[in-house]
Amino acid sequence: MPFTRKHILGTQEMDAAEISYILDVTESFVEVSTREIKRVPTLRGKTVINLFYEPSTRTRTSFEIAGKRLSADVINVSASASSVVKGESLKDTAMTLAAMAVDVIVIRHPASGAPHFLARHVPSSVINGGDGTHEHPTQALLDLYTIRQRKGTLAGLRVSIIGDIAHSRVARSNIFAMRTMGMDVRVCGPASLLPLEVESLGVRVGTDLDAAIGDADIIMVLRLQLERQETGLIPSLREYSQLYGLTLKRLEQAKPDVLIMHPGPINRGVEISPEVAEGPYSLILDQVANGVALRMALLYLLAGGPGPE
Amino acid sequence: MPFTRKHILGTQEMDAAEISYILDVTESFVEVSTREIKRVPTLRGKTVINLFYEPSTRTRTSFEIAGKRLSADVINVSASASSVVKGESLKDTAMTLAAMAVDVIVIRHPASGAPHFLARHVPSSVINGGDGTHEHPTQALLDLYTIRQRKGTLAGLRVSIIGDIAHSRVARSNIFAMRTMGMDVRVCGPASLLPLEVESLGVRVGTDLDAAIGDADIIMVLRLQLERQETGLIPSLREYSQLYGLTLKRLEQAKPDVLIMHPGPINRGVEISPEVAEGPYSLILDQVANGVALRMALLYLLAGGPGPE
Amino acid sequence: MPFTRKHILGTQEMDAAEISYILDVTESFVEVSTREIKRVPTLRGKTVINLFYEPSTRTRTSFEIAGKRLSADVINVSASASSVVKGESLKDTAMTLAAMAVDVIVIRHPASGAPHFLARHVPSSVINGGDGTHEHPTQALLDLYTIRQRKGTLAGLRVSIIGDIAHSRVARSNIFAMRTMGMDVRVCGPASLLPLEVESLGVRVGTDLDAAIGDADIIMVLRLQLERQETGLIPSLREYSQLYGLTLKRLEQAKPDVLIMHPGPINRGVEISPEVAEGPYSLILDQVANGVALRMALLYLLAGGPGPE
Repeated sequence: MPFTRKHILGTQEMDAAEISYILDVTESFVEVSTREIKRVPTLRGKTVINLFYEPSTRTRTSFEIAGKRLSADVINVSASASSVVKGESLKDTAMTLAAMAVDVIVIRHPASGAPHFLARHVPSSVINGGDGTHEHPTQALLDLYTIRQRKGTLAGLRVSIIGDIAHSRVARSNIFAMRTMGMDVRVCGPASLLPLEVESLGVRVGTDLDAAIGDADIIMVLRLQLERQETGLIPSLREYSQLYGLTLKRLEQAKPDVLIMHPGPINRGVEISPEVAEGPYSLILDQVANGVALRMALLYLLAGGPGPE
Repeated sequence: MPFTRKHILGTQEMDAAEISYILDVTESFVEVSTREIKRVPTLRGKTVINLFYEPSTRTRTSFEIAGKRLSADVINVSASASSVVKGESLKDTAMTLAAMAVDVIVIRHPASGAPHFLARHVPSSVINGGDGTHEHPTQALLDLYTIRQRKGTLAGLRVSIIGDIAHSRVARSNIFAMRTMGMDVRVCGPASLLPLEVESLGVRVGTDLDAAIGDADIIMVLRLQLERQETGLIPSLREYSQLYGLTLKRLEQAKPDVLIMHPGPINRGVEISPEVAEGPYSLILDQVANGVALRMALLYLLAGGPGPE
Repeated sequence: MPFTRKHILGTQEMDAAEISYILDVTESFVEVSTREIKRVPTLRGKTVINLFYEPSTRTRTSFEIAGKRLSADVINVSASASSVVKGESLKDTAMTLAAMAVDVIVIRHPASGAPHFLARHVPSSVINGGDGTHEHPTQALLDLYTIRQRKGTLAGLRVSIIGDIAHSRVARSNIFAMRTMGMDVRVCGPASLLPLEVESLGVRVGTDLDAAIGDADIIMVLRLQLERQETGLIPSLREYSQLYGLTLKRLEQAKPDVLIMHPGPINRGVEISPEVAEGPYSLILDQVANGVALRMALLYLLAGGPGPE
């Protein structure tokens, strides 16, 4: 399949063939990180910029490692260390960086749509590393890869996504991609954290955790933004944890081969108990490991060059 | 021409032959950034430190990309992330870094003269990445390269530099270099932002923007530091913009082939209108692109090794 | 000697044979930084993470340069730029980073024992880059290398360590390693900055600087944390400096071939005078230069691969 997409902005615009192809390419990069010498010359002489307007360890580091294992030159630009403090517009920052002959700009930004805006104004390829409450496509794609790696397939699997659906770009990107791949998606959380229009995305909706656990092949727990408490969207962390925290006790009702996922970073003892996060059915560290491979695949697909040898 | 200079501290000390030579070497590096594989082995095994005491996206990134495309090891040290918070003196920080067998230190510092101080105390080569209100030689050299690239020559061209001349290291470095190259320089801005002794630099001075626009081959607009308003040096941004902002209307009086430059980051709608900044006569993104090549040239000239292949 | 240690957590657990071997390996890497091309392919395709929870120029830069000269991919993660702000636990941060197939994690952390905790939970090798008031083993090892380089031997040498012994991880790691290597160690400082149990470490203790200077082959001056004054542990910087600051006058009583060391960054005029810090008997910059080589040696020993060619 020839890959002709120039930017990775969201999973909403991807069809099943494209998603499958990206996961297939990811497969070949998973192996690279298990080698004695974890480096291929694929993107030698290419320049990748990580333009992060929000702090992030895991996503920025994952992209940086992915780029370096492909031999690209990777440059980090963070809002706090940049002339953004001087009030330069996003557009000017991006056009300036692109003018330095940059091949790929990975952007994380608190404003929904920022990567799409960028993609219209720069000649570089743009990867959305998370924009506002909109999309986080690389997270969803690595999640799908991780599920497929374990289950062998995607279509027909039942997924329950638990938590703050309304504000989660991870949930949105996963819902789009999972529906496209023929998965059965249920979302579950307190009513105050469920978006009004969510049924229109083709998912089942509920507020009862036990029901969401009962028939799920995969339970995806979302991080609770602790600020939600201050804004009154949840009564207290304690109550949230009692109603929606995933514990061993709660898991007793789950399928014996249920798989647990979380995009991280986890709030131990809030939305997930340590025993569950580190249990044998937990894919949390697989998600992290596969994230590097998925990002290598995307950088390779966008910036060209030969594949892994 | 054998290049024997050890440091790049300012354009004031450079003669025309040296500037011409640097621009010639830049020429050969411009091509590298247009290649499929934008990387040459010129500085393999050399170490470059970006020591930035002021935040900067573009200059730091430009040097980092330049170093990496030359295959150098580039290390960023920023004041906020460094033990500078522990109160270590500039001299000790620099001597420490240099003791790690560093070939080139690029320094940006709010104190005029800091790079010169450094150059007296460390064995490494030092490049001034901007010091206080004193000099920003790499900006001026990339500006000259950009003009020469478009006009084919420098001598005899008329340049008007508009804005806060008094506090601009970009203006100072450009005035020195342009006068040395036989260009006719005029500076223009509100009287409160014109330095007292500026005629002694061999430039014409005025406060009337229309006069400065009229016969210019190149109009270089400076960034207005928004803090100037608070210190009372300008009455208001609005008034500044009305009197000295470069707009399409204002440009009607300019030569038909006038070229517009700005060192960035721009304040859209303050010193320059978006239409002018993005117009066909604007060289702003050329300046950025050439900045990488000029810095590659300087790193190559200082740290030796073979040229681009 | 086969090197079987997986982590470098402290000098307390090392015996004389191991320390000697590390210093021998360091010897071969000292030469690399003097080459025209300061880069060997030893760790190509290996990933090193600098995980710094405290700001640091010199240690972070030293590890970064060491890793890059070995051709490793080096990733910096600092607390301020990371999701640590989101409250992620150290364990989860480390497990996440390790899941990205990271070979070595260098950690600096304000909590004593943090590197040991990490080493129990991640598959990567861990190097302690300084933990609380506990250990800073790479500093002690580079100090020993520097002494051995100058004196040819370690056993029997007399060392006086001056300053805030109670809170110094540098002092602790040096005391362990120096005692193991058969050196005669004396510590000296105001009573409020001497730990209660220090004699049990096999060192002599005193509060009189002149006595500590008199028969020392090496005087190691510690950095005074300026916060000590606020907490009442010293009456004033001025008084501290008069009683414990190492000056040329004070040095008149020292052996003619005494050597002066300081881990940096120095407080000029507080614990050491500029004349002493920059005098001919000062090893301060040798310590910095050897630090890169020592860290190259440790990264090589932990992450395998062929040695320097």
